[in-house]
Amino acid sequence: MSNQKPGIPKGTRDFGPIEMSKRNHIFDTIKSVFQQHGYSQIETPAMENLDTLLGKYGEEGDKLLFKILNSGDFLNGIDPQKIVSEGANSVALKICEKGLRYDLTVPFARYVVQHQHEIVFPFRRYQIQPVWRADRPQKGRYREFYQCDADVIGSNSLLNEADLIKIVDEVFSLLAIRVKIKLNNRKILAGIAEYIGQPEKITDITVAIDKLEKIGHEAVSQELQHKGISVQGIYKLEPLFALSGNNQEKLSGLERIVETSEIARKGIEEMRYLLNVLNTVKLNSPIEFDIALARGLNYYTGTIIEVKALDAEIGSICGGGRYDDLTGVFGLEDISGVGVSFGADRICDVMEQLNLFPAETVQSSKVLFANFGERESLYCIGLISELHKKGISAELYPDAAKLKKQMAYADARKIQYVVLIGENEMKDGMLSVKDMTSGDQFQASMDELVEKLG
Amino acid sequence: MSNQKPGIPKGTRDFGPIEMSKRNHIFDTIKSVFQQHGYSQIETPAMENLDTLLGKYGEEGDKLLFKILNSGDFLNGIDPQKIVSEGANSVALKICEKGLRYDLTVPFARYVVQHQHEIVFPFRRYQIQPVWRADRPQKGRYREFYQCDADVIGSNSLLNEADLIKIVDEVFSLLAIRVKIKLNNRKILAGIAEYIGQPEKITDITVAIDKLEKIGHEAVSQELQHKGISVQGIYKLEPLFALSGNNQEKLSGLERIVETSEIARKGIEEMRYLLNVLNTVKLNSPIEFDIALARGLNYYTGTIIEVKALDAEIGSICGGGRYDDLTGVFGLEDISGVGVSFGADRICDVMEQLNLFPAETVQSSKVLFANFGERESLYCIGLISELHKKGISAELYPDAAKLKKQMAYADARKIQYVVLIGENEMKDGMLSVKDMTSGDQFQASMDELVEKLG
Repeated sequence: MSNQKPGIPKGTRDFGPIEMSKRNHIFDTIKSVFQQHGYSQIETPAMENLDTLLGKYGEEGDKLLFKILNSGDFLNGIDPQKIVSEGANSVALKICEKGLRYDLTVPFARYVVQHQHEIVFPFRRYQIQPVWRADRPQKGRYREFYQCDADVIGSNSLLNEADLIKIVDEVFSLLAIRVKIKLNNRKILAGIAEYIGQPEKITDITVAIDKLEKIGHEAVSQELQHKGISVQGIYKLEPLFALSGNNQEKLSGLERIVETSEIARKGIEEMRYLLNVLNTVKLNSPIEFDIALARGLNYYTGTIIEVKALDAEIGSICGGGRYDDLTGVFGLEDISGVGVSFGADRICDVMEQLNLFPAETVQSSKVLFANFGERESLYCIGLISELHKKGISAELYPDAAKLKKQMAYADARKIQYVVLIGENEMKDGMLSVKDMTSGDQFQASMDELVEKLG
Repeated sequence: MSNQKPGIPKGTRDFGPIEMSKRNHIFDTIKSVFQQHGYSQIETPAMENLDTLLGKYGEEGDKLLFKILNSGDFLNGIDPQKIVSEGANSVALKICEKGLRYDLTVPFARYVVQHQHEIVFPFRRYQIQPVWRADRPQKGRYREFYQCDADVIGSNSLLNEADLIKIVDEVFSLLAIRVKIKLNNRKILAGIAEYIGQPEKITDITVAIDKLEKIGHEAVSQELQHKGISVQGIYKLEPLFALSGNNQEKLSGLERIVETSEIARKGIEEMRYLLNVLNTVKLNSPIEFDIALARGLNYYTGTIIEVKALDAEIGSICGGGRYDDLTGVFGLEDISGVGVSFGADRICDVMEQLNLFPAETVQSSKVLFANFGERESLYCIGLISELHKKGISAELYPDAAKLKKQMAYADARKIQYVVLIGENEMKDGMLSVKDMTSGDQFQASMDELVEKLG
């Protein structure tokens, strides 16, 4: 075998001990909040049948699926001449049956339908797993990244939305990230399309409105016109963009404008009820009703949720909403669900940028036993076992290297205490301990050391 | 979109809430022991460049790699006529640059070389991630499964072997699985090949010897003959198979037979030293020196370790060994490492078979608040927040469904307490609590409930 210069596929990353400690801090926080709220974990395979994935993420999404080559003789039964004539897209489906999961929502919908007879509904599930997308890699966008999703399926109650928003608020409070939670309702957006007389244009309208914050009022109007919205319709939208005041005031203003639309009234009623419930829950984060919030995904049918970090320019770090028929495509109709998804990688970037990781996040041994030779190290192994039994992490430097090297190791690994055991210590049954933070060196019995670390 | 009957690729699995609780019990146990011994976690991408993976697992292994189709126009620049003539294996390498990781060891070696200047050596790392193999699926063999690896790299000391064996012993003690830890040393096997005069046949000899337990003495001799080992050589092996007594006795017996081989003497010396260190550590599991232990992987060069469950017929559930040059192929020579790998899926199967999962393994809310309507549920939400603040998992049933249905939900989810709050309870500030295990119903204040759950 020839020497290879090692590397990894573009858009993917290795995570070393320090990065892992930080990431685990985020995952553990999210997990603990999910569990406290009664959500149960599931996991699905990295590979799904392409049938399951194709057509669920739009045409663009289909292109971004990583496809897995069939094993064995994948060319068997394929007419080679056709490969010449048919082109990549069509050939890909002939030689690949499986793809890597693109998000956690579609595999979850597939899971619910497949296991419907084992599941206890309402089903509160969480799932923390990587997803893969063949996107062009760029800063903050990866080809492999983690999603952390919580969903409730099989209940129409808006109390679920309230519970999920409480979860969002608790997670970001625990991580010390200041956020704003924005809310809207797809029924309100549908009502607006109805109000301007072009209900069939709901998708174009929401896609355009979604860009309001990014590209501004003028550009959105242009896009709408371009998409075939009438001048009169665009004119009717004007007062909607001008709604102001607190959430209740904005809702009342909106209501006066779109009152003829039944679906808009239904959306407004849901939003009022949800805001009312959220009022009785004490949240740390501000809640903002925003009719310009649309979210790209077309499967949402009710509440939509998006979370922005207040102190970092990074777009949304968490989002979600209610979908009334995600399982329909897999053959189970009329099951409503609602969920949120945390973007662990972006959250990590925000915390890094704002320096929010506590110092103690980095996981390492509490104690290093220096190695002074064979007899000493055998003696140390016994003491280390005692510490392990008491739940204290400790390790022996495996080689009788120069003390300077062993100390540098402890320092680099941020191990706080180094225990030095030579002839005298073995005779006395005492430990010489060096505190790497203060530089102090002191004598202690094992019990005293355990107490210090407890 | 037409309705699809949902399913997942063969050899892969969904894990529901109960399975996940059990799996997490295993992962958490292994993780906590790794961390106590000073091992730090890393993660590598699911996809590696095929260059990194090919040629590392033998010809058979190459075939079992899942390959990922290049995105975009993967046929671009490929002469379609060649596809006809060249056949699947060659075409695959033209249209796929990436593959799914096959184990954690090769990605780790790649990681060490790529990050050699950031790593503090000796580097104790652990890694718990899924791996993928296009094996024929069968009972207990999956196409996606988890490996849990701990390795020390950059230290020759046999104290590392001792530490890893202690880890193995602690993990299985905590999981309550009775095991036997078998040890051998590749140098001993090399010495045996030298002793019978055919050192170049070491691989054939170890592969044959590895089957001793499975196919018996006679069949191994036949295989050896078939592989070109001389009759005289096979005759010289006889007394080796007959070694008996305790570990020290077997070592002494072996030493008398192969004393002319320097490498055998070196292996025996290492084994004696390791057994001696292990004697000073209190292990729960028996240690057995077994010259028939070979392990398939050719990169091992020193100690080899294999763990068998005593009460289940399932083959090895953990194994490992020392490798002196795993990073050489990626351009970093003379770095010795040693590691063990736990097979989480097999361990799960053993624990299931022997009924070893504690009842409290299943993760669920401690308390369900029944839902009697709008006013009551808003009142409950406040109490649930208080429980969450005290670290107690609790949830509200989201719909005002029939009480019978809500109770059935609590029962199915194994939630121990159901709190019932109606008009009276809201007036008194008391809770009516139903203990789902005993069936008792009682009145309690929030403080009393918290104390009961604490």
